Amino acid sequence: MKYILPILLSVFLLSPDFMKAQSVLTNQHKEHAQQLIQKAMGSDVAWERLTYMADTFGPRFSGSENLENSIDWIVETMEEDGFDKVWTQPVMVPHWVRGEESATLLSPRKKDLPMLSLGGSVATPEGGISAEVIVVKSFDELEKVKDQVEGKIVLYNAEFTSYGRTVQYRVNGAIEAARHGAVASIIRSVGPYSMQTPHTGTMYYDDEVKKIPHAAITIEDAMLIQRLYDRGEKIEINLNIQARTLPDTESRNVIAEIKGTEFPEEIIVMGGHIDSWDVGQGVMDDGGGCIAAWEAVRLMNELGIKPKRTIRVVLWTNEENGLRGAEEYHRWVKEEEKSLENHVLAIESDAGVFDPIGFGFSGSERAYDILSEIGTTLQPIESGQVTKGGGGADIGPLMRDGVPGMGLVVDGSRYFWYHHTGADTMDKLNKEDFNECVATMAVFAYAVADIEERLPR
Amino acid sequence: MKYILPILLSVFLLSPDFMKAQSVLTNQHKEHAQQLIQKAMGSDVAWERLTYMADTFGPRFSGSENLENSIDWIVETMEEDGFDKVWTQPVMVPHWVRGEESATLLSPRKKDLPMLSLGGSVATPEGGISAEVIVVKSFDELEKVKDQVEGKIVLYNAEFTSYGRTVQYRVNGAIEAARHGAVASIIRSVGPYSMQTPHTGTMYYDDEVKKIPHAAITIEDAMLIQRLYDRGEKIEINLNIQARTLPDTESRNVIAEIKGTEFPEEIIVMGGHIDSWDVGQGVMDDGGGCIAAWEAVRLMNELGIKPKRTIRVVLWTNEENGLRGAEEYHRWVKEEEKSLENHVLAIESDAGVFDPIGFGFSGSERAYDILSEIGTTLQPIESGQVTKGGGGADIGPLMRDGVPGMGLVVDGSRYFWYHHTGADTMDKLNKEDFNECVATMAVFAYAVADIEERLPR
Repeated sequence: MKYILPILLSVFLLSPDFMKAQSVLTNQHKEHAQQLIQKAMGSDVAWERLTYMADTFGPRFSGSENLENSIDWIVETMEEDGFDKVWTQPVMVPHWVRGEESATLLSPRKKDLPMLSLGGSVATPEGGISAEVIVVKSFDELEKVKDQVEGKIVLYNAEFTSYGRTVQYRVNGAIEAARHGAVASIIRSVGPYSMQTPHTGTMYYDDEVKKIPHAAITIEDAMLIQRLYDRGEKIEINLNIQARTLPDTESRNVIAEIKGTEFPEEIIVMGGHIDSWDVGQGVMDDGGGCIAAWEAVRLMNELGIKPKRTIRVVLWTNEENGLRGAEEYHRWVKEEEKSLENHVLAIESDAGVFDPIGFGFSGSERAYDILSEIGTTLQPIESGQVTKGGGGADIGPLMRDGVPGMGLVVDGSRYFWYHHTGADTMDKLNKEDFNECVATMAVFAYAVADIEERLPR
Repeated sequence: MKYILPILLSVFLLSPDFMKAQSVLTNQHKEHAQQLIQKAMGSDVAWERLTYMADTFGPRFSGSENLENSIDWIVETMEEDGFDKVWTQPVMVPHWVRGEESATLLSPRKKDLPMLSLGGSVATPEGGISAEVIVVKSFDELEKVKDQVEGKIVLYNAEFTSYGRTVQYRVNGAIEAARHGAVASIIRSVGPYSMQTPHTGTMYYDDEVKKIPHAAITIEDAMLIQRLYDRGEKIEINLNIQARTLPDTESRNVIAEIKGTEFPEEIIVMGGHIDSWDVGQGVMDDGGGCIAAWEAVRLMNELGIKPKRTIRVVLWTNEENGLRGAEEYHRWVKEEEKSLENHVLAIESDAGVFDPIGFGFSGSERAYDILSEIGTTLQPIESGQVTKGGGGADIGPLMRDGVPGMGLVVDGSRYFWYHHTGADTMDKLNKEDFNECVATMAVFAYAVADIEERLPR
């Protein structure tokens, strides 16, 4: 009989219900969370900094002065924000430069086709390449007409379904077209909506296959050419790309941290990518994510909130066309700082700073439960929902080595309208939504850094 | 006593309730209406014709070959559609030609500003005009800083409220800026939304005031420049416009009619404007309206429906930058055909062919009641609502001379996203909505042409 009570007790304590019920949040955590939300929602700092950066420096493409000037300004400004340490990490990045470029429909009638060459594309000869066009909607269609491709320009008119599926024509389109002898390839811009708005983005070559020029025209014009083609018209286009690939150049990851008061070696890393494409202002992709992560920690400093664990803001460079910043940070963490095991959680925002919903999390069940509890404190701004599965490109290398990771989830209905286009500009951002993103990142980072229990892997 | 019955009867017959209750529609009218709706909704003809015209000829600007080629094709095609008569009416139209053009932000940093010069603008010297920019949000603001305008470029960053209110900066902006010594003027594109999409449109000069170049940049860039300006930055822009105004050239109104079987001299006129701006495809503004009016009558021909009164389709030329087609038709009706009194109703579609709601009507109460009754037959596609007030630019001259007029009312939420931009293209049009527009125009035109009672003025 004397064993009955301990057994019953241990069964109860180990039951999932009790585990769930055991709260990780103290009253102070809950109070701090509300302070962070209030402070974020009443502040103009994030908005003003993002606007200032975007307006002053313009888009921040890898290899550009704009990017390095932005980083200089960030570092200078961060140094007055109460961080314990601010530093940069050198990263060699690709240096592709867009030149004069155009696409012109020559037949059946002359028409200028607004376009953007894709990042990394080789140039055409001066004056461009004029050739007959073969239009396909998919790689399957290309396969069926592969005998007719030689000497032509392939136009992929692939309708947007999801980014992941449709982007393959941007990424691999030049390789597949060149395999069958095409002299150039063109894609329909990868996006669900267009107002004559071409999208750029990264693309690959294969060393075994001839490198041909690769560009994006608008959805409108791709659909127009498809219709003309379907009516039996002979399509001819001049594609002119005077881009250059220069030697790799030095950029930097920006890192700023506040040291944990009890477990300074345990790190919550949070950020976005500071580089953007070379069009628009790189606001949604991903200036907003960077400024939100930075501001989240600045608010803690301003409120005098000092969490137990270290919170580190990282603004990775060169996500767009290389991911070199993410790789370098990961290498440094593993080989130099030797802190991989102590990376408790990696947080990224790279889906735009629209109205936030919560986070998508990849990690253990127990960690998911803890994060879900933390999410309840965001009820006032309805942004605390934690869903399973999520992460980000820049935290990918850490996550593959076992670090739990999560990505900010926002109302994504217009993200792909803007990203990689000239329309990714400040006016698309709603200040209140943006401040809610700041608050959401602040509350999660703070709570994970301050709760007694280390977020289990 | 013998007078009592007739008096009572006449009081009853003349009472408003009886007037209202007295139906103008026979069962045959109701049947024909349903046939027209069914036929329109099941047809690809309107869609295919509009697509063919827009794709083959491109935008149809006054003075362009595109416009005249489109008109040739329309006339040829109409001649096989069972109309009693198809003809064109010569109209001399303005001939302004867009040339090479650009706007470049020079200070505080270099940036290409996507732009469209406004229709009728004078050119800049070769290489453009480079000048400091003064930014104002309204004519009131301009008035306050008028002493600083001399030698500068005025940028009107007027936020879109309604088209009618905001378009004044496009129409009169150059005059007001030049009055104070500006060397050029630029507007924020007149529209509620932009994805780096400049809007063109018509503008005026005043013979008493110096003519200065006038152009539109995107909403995004106007807002960017406003922010830079508000931060105290010196703004400098190079504006380069190589447009030319050539001598007036001949265009044509297209007219096609089916003769009424009982009152052939009584005319219901219905149409849109066949010209467009010189960008995009002029689909919503106003190719769709033209094809819808044409198709509405073609469907009657196909169904063998022969109304009592004449229905005349008119595709007016040069609405956009002159209204010369509308004026010539009106002159001809008054002075040559002498049919003004017999113009029973004028119907226009020029608000896009989005999901139709009904018509906005300007005319007598009794006519409004009749039209409202006709509208009930459109219940299956919910497009029969008649509201008070409405018309159109091309039927304006007729309406000012007393002809009842009405304009198709559609879901207008995106009309000003596209109109006068490169994004006014086929892909923005939903085939079902478009067919509903056809059906709506067909039913109203047919019923007004066939009911016993002539629509009273």
